[in-house]
Amino acid sequence: MKIRIFVTLKNGVLDPQGKAIHHALDGLGFSGVNDVRSGRFIEIDVEDNVSDGDIDAMCRKLLANMVIENYRIEKMPESVPA
Amino acid sequence: MKIRIFVTLKNGVLDPQGKAIHHALDGLGFSGVNDVRSGRFIEIDVEDNVSDGDIDAMCRKLLANMVIENYRIEKMPESVPA
Repeated sequence: MKIRIFVTLKNGVLDPQGKAIHHALDGLGFSGVNDVRSGRFIEIDVEDNVSDGDIDAMCRKLLANMVIENYRIEKMPESVPA
Repeated sequence: MKIRIFVTLKNGVLDPQGKAIHHALDGLGFSGVNDVRSGRFIEIDVEDNVSDGDIDAMCRKLLANMVIENYRIEKMPESVPA
């Protein structure tokens, strides 16, 4: 079973990487960009018997810093390519 | 218009960060994890008149290293919360 986990900074938390990307896009001449937020994306292939609670615990204990980050879990159907 | 861009390493490219996460999950006692791949996730808020071609160019020129990375673009409906 493939699980996708998206880790994003909470609203209000300063995102220097996003700001740097925004600035670089401006420098490359791309106009019309209002805001850029950066985050992490982790794809985990787990056995089918791993519970949702376990996946949630992985996020809370390791993958996301709950003080400044949110996470979202998405289960992928087996047949969809990455 | 909100755009989500997912940047992932191409298949076959070594992913030390993913390996480190996998190892750490094992260390924390999570069993049943077969594989972990890490990637980046960038959310861009652009004006509605920015074309798909422009967004593609942003990915190719700045956001993804086309030698080792793939990218995927996803347009978000305006009303969906991040």
